[in-house]
Amino acid sequence: MFELDPRLAADTVPLGRLPLCRVLLMDDSRYPWLVLVPALPGLSELHELEPADRHRLMDEAVLVSRALLAVFQPDKINTGCLGNQVAQLHMHVIARFRADSAWPGPVWGSGEAAPYPPDTREAACKRLRGVLSAHPEFDV
Amino acid sequence: MFELDPRLAADTVPLGRLPLCRVLLMDDSRYPWLVLVPALPGLSELHELEPADRHRLMDEAVLVSRALLAVFQPDKINTGCLGNQVAQLHMHVIARFRADSAWPGPVWGSGEAAPYPPDTREAACKRLRGVLSAHPEFDV
Repeated sequence: MFELDPRLAADTVPLGRLPLCRVLLMDDSRYPWLVLVPALPGLSELHELEPADRHRLMDEAVLVSRALLAVFQPDKINTGCLGNQVAQLHMHVIARFRADSAWPGPVWGSGEAAPYPPDTREAACKRLRGVLSAHPEFDV
Repeated sequence: MFELDPRLAADTVPLGRLPLCRVLLMDDSRYPWLVLVPALPGLSELHELEPADRHRLMDEAVLVSRALLAVFQPDKINTGCLGNQVAQLHMHVIARFRADSAWPGPVWGSGEAAPYPPDTREAACKRLRGVLSAHPEFDV
């Protein structure tokens, strides 16, 4: 049975679900940063997904990228599957700005997370859910 | 018409072609590191790919991941599309080791590239091409 890795759970806020993935907001106000976690047990690498599921993951990454673009108008989207610290397969989808603190480097390994003030986090979640809810397959 | 970005060309060695992507070896002996570049003009973000092409990109990422696993037996595969410095859409597929110099951080932004000695680079290319050539769709 699928269970979200406790470290991913601790670092994020749940936004909702897509057919394959849990959609999480990283609790780091430096960048609008989503994490997709395929809700299947025992996965740590992309090549362990069945072809239909890896295609689905890409579709869901594009869907949440478009939500980040709509809400935050970033300069660039960064995506990545690393998993060097948390083995459970997950994909980062991050809105990047030329003015953000890690630009043009990657966000991973750059400084310390800056948790959102609760009001700001709730506002970001609400705006993202508002856009994502246009997709019938998104479920809060 | 597609043309490989000159900076990607300068930092890599061409390994071959898959139906969608050019397959490049990053000239950095610290990590076995491949770069996939969809051979389509004018792309900088994953969501700009047609659905069939983004699925194909994922399939090609898995194919080259498996080649890295077969040749180098890494501990982890890292993949990422950043493009903060080189806008042309490209996907990194990197073989990571717990003993590598950037572990458990990302390779991007970690120190300076260590170009291969020419013999070692040719040997790595030969081994990777040997495995990739098992796929009829791979063309040197």
